[in-house]
Amino acid sequence: MNQHPLTNSGENQRLFSYEQRVKTAFDVVVPTLKDISSMQNESDFEIRAQEIAHKQLGYKLPESFLEDAWVQQLDMRRLFAWCMFETYRIFCDDFFNNDPLGTGNENNFKQMLQECGFHTLDVSPCADGRLAHVIRYVMRLPYREVRRKSFAGAMFDIEDSIDKWVETELMRFREGQPNAADESTRYLKTVVYHYSSVDPEHEGCAAHGSDTDLAAQSGIDRLYGFKQAIENTYCCGASIDHLLIGLDTDTDTLRIHIPGEDGSINLKKYIDAREVYDETKTMSAQSAKEWIADFVKGNNPSMSFGMTKFITYILINNLSQIDYVRNYHGDYYKDAGHAERFIGAGIGFEEIQLRNLTYFAYLNTVEEAAADLDVGIKIFTGLNVSHGMPVPVVIRYDYHGNVPGARERAEQHCYQVAGALENRYPELTSQGLLHTLLAVRDVSAASCIEVLDSSVTAQTAQEAH
Amino acid sequence: MNQHPLTNSGENQRLFSYEQRVKTAFDVVVPTLKDISSMQNESDFEIRAQEIAHKQLGYKLPESFLEDAWVQQLDMRRLFAWCMFETYRIFCDDFFNNDPLGTGNENNFKQMLQECGFHTLDVSPCADGRLAHVIRYVMRLPYREVRRKSFAGAMFDIEDSIDKWVETELMRFREGQPNAADESTRYLKTVVYHYSSVDPEHEGCAAHGSDTDLAAQSGIDRLYGFKQAIENTYCCGASIDHLLIGLDTDTDTLRIHIPGEDGSINLKKYIDAREVYDETKTMSAQSAKEWIADFVKGNNPSMSFGMTKFITYILINNLSQIDYVRNYHGDYYKDAGHAERFIGAGIGFEEIQLRNLTYFAYLNTVEEAAADLDVGIKIFTGLNVSHGMPVPVVIRYDYHGNVPGARERAEQHCYQVAGALENRYPELTSQGLLHTLLAVRDVSAASCIEVLDSSVTAQTAQEAH
Repeated sequence: MNQHPLTNSGENQRLFSYEQRVKTAFDVVVPTLKDISSMQNESDFEIRAQEIAHKQLGYKLPESFLEDAWVQQLDMRRLFAWCMFETYRIFCDDFFNNDPLGTGNENNFKQMLQECGFHTLDVSPCADGRLAHVIRYVMRLPYREVRRKSFAGAMFDIEDSIDKWVETELMRFREGQPNAADESTRYLKTVVYHYSSVDPEHEGCAAHGSDTDLAAQSGIDRLYGFKQAIENTYCCGASIDHLLIGLDTDTDTLRIHIPGEDGSINLKKYIDAREVYDETKTMSAQSAKEWIADFVKGNNPSMSFGMTKFITYILINNLSQIDYVRNYHGDYYKDAGHAERFIGAGIGFEEIQLRNLTYFAYLNTVEEAAADLDVGIKIFTGLNVSHGMPVPVVIRYDYHGNVPGARERAEQHCYQVAGALENRYPELTSQGLLHTLLAVRDVSAASCIEVLDSSVTAQTAQEAH
Repeated sequence: MNQHPLTNSGENQRLFSYEQRVKTAFDVVVPTLKDISSMQNESDFEIRAQEIAHKQLGYKLPESFLEDAWVQQLDMRRLFAWCMFETYRIFCDDFFNNDPLGTGNENNFKQMLQECGFHTLDVSPCADGRLAHVIRYVMRLPYREVRRKSFAGAMFDIEDSIDKWVETELMRFREGQPNAADESTRYLKTVVYHYSSVDPEHEGCAAHGSDTDLAAQSGIDRLYGFKQAIENTYCCGASIDHLLIGLDTDTDTLRIHIPGEDGSINLKKYIDAREVYDETKTMSAQSAKEWIADFVKGNNPSMSFGMTKFITYILINNLSQIDYVRNYHGDYYKDAGHAERFIGAGIGFEEIQLRNLTYFAYLNTVEEAAADLDVGIKIFTGLNVSHGMPVPVVIRYDYHGNVPGARERAEQHCYQVAGALENRYPELTSQGLLHTLLAVRDVSAASCIEVLDSSVTAQTAQEAH
């Protein structure tokens, strides 16, 4: 294959095989259910259906769903949702048990980050499913070492970021983690907005009306707001560093905005990784590295050594992803638009590191996230409901098991949000076109998810009475 | 008057005159509107109504409300809500401009608290309106120096308390405020549950089914949970101190639970301030003070010097309040049950330091606080709706003006909650039996509240089109 000299092909192969495996597991559900549906009036239906499910999906279907098929039509909506949730559960178990996306490089990264002058890397991408792989794939970072919180339009919550900054600083003072408070490193807050090179007018960021400049400028405003909030609230030179990054969702190419001499972010001044790729493609690996470092420095010679090094690092990492897309998907992704498999609502979802798998809605309540959820439901109305298939929603709350009562509160939280979802979308719910899975996870124990309940099985229980 | 030698009668008079003044301002609304209603068909109605309003309420009514009275009945519900909100606004302006409940003693209190071994006093009373005066009246503390967050049943949010602990510790490390992190003081978390001595079976804590032991035990569990959460989450000896206090809402008498030798809280072992009052009533002030200090120490000689001193301090303060109730209200309050004037929903309400003025619902969203709000609406259905009067709800969000965008977010928050309230109580809303006032306040600037909007005037604006 014709690749950039700095591309890590071994990792590309591993990442692709994982992406392929996970997405296939979700995408095989519909054809399998079609096969099963076509035979539901045959006499040995239950046995044959289970054979097909076992062979194509890798698991058996709930017998109670199948046994009445001879007298009434199979409830395909419910069966579809059940399969999506079962696939999700298996995918989660694999992720937390086998660490398929581990880099083995976590400690080196921590050290490198501190050498760049940062003790924490906090990334807020857009909640769009086409950015869900930005940490592990597009930037090739160890996902456990990066704080990721996604928001529609990358419009992160300043108060939430202040809380995280406070928590981080206290850990530095009290426990010297990740480094001591008197080391002159900073909290680096990064916004990743996005645009589409193939169809810029339609496939950009929905939250900003596909207006790339608006998406970028809104990111700048929010970063400045966070910095000013810290500086105004805390004395003694408290501040943060910030970095604005754009992502072309068609090719996974990054554009990194170069801070000006006064540290300001310039909307128009950025390095496009694609240009870096083209300029250095025919060089040796070593020359390419040096060229990129010089090029970054040349863009702003007054930029700190650390920021220069960090931007160089991200740019080099992105070259592998550019080749990843070219090799496995062609000039650009075929799924330029939304193609998410399910909605994830709540707090958690560390396992979601794949593009276009999940529509994110980070939320505490449906009430405050109503606008984001409406967008998600609209997307899935096109993807699923228009074909008569339900919207699968995973409601998930992570909790700290070492905090008394936290598990019970996470559980309660799941049920509260499930109820609020039903209230907000009563028609979808009553028609069986919205199904929920309720799950929690103890992040202190680094355990698997724990499935609490599901609208799919609740229905079975109800029918049994 | 026959008083305890340690009672501060001067302060009692000032506090009573303030309570009297504020409550009268609210309570004069109904008789005034009755007077006005009775004359609405007279020819000089508008002029006479304004005269009466000005004389009895101290402000004029909106002319647009009155001018159509000759052709259709006055909308008394709307007028009532408008008056309640106007009274609230005037009450707030007085509070923030004139500091009527200031003690002038704030700095001494801070120092005393640190001498007792605590750098922060965090009190979570029950959200019941009969405990709203617990800081400034019942315990006689400077309200600005005490963190108060009320919750139904005093069941405070452990995660929220952890956040506050983290913020407090960071301020100690970074800025030495209120004292340096290496001083061996602790964060003192206090729960105030309540019971009724006159009608224990019915007028206790609704959230705990008027079961006093359950209310106390739930407080103990929550305090232990918070302590354990801090100890499990942070290393290096991180912990908190805790104290459980009960309040008899009929007489404002406190019972303070004395920590055991191992620091545990005993449900049954407490000092009742009424017994202390009776024992020391005939002594000289000096002897009474000494007797109380000895008595507290005698209850647990191994208790720290600081905790002994703090409990003694609170007990002595409470003696003034016991006399306050006896002198101004008799053997017990006549309004043993709920008699709140309005519901306060949101985050803020520092100005609410009076008993039975406000039903609190601290909330971010209606969704998560639905149960608390339903209780409030039920209470006001009895108090107001059953007499054809609407439920006045003040929706309020405080914000930090030095955080960019915080004001806009507080404003948005108000409208979101107002919309969610309408959705939850559509019948009350459509009948004009639920009215809202939307207000924000910049706590950084220590300013007055800023009224954004109201369902009362929105209606007028709507009619004008």
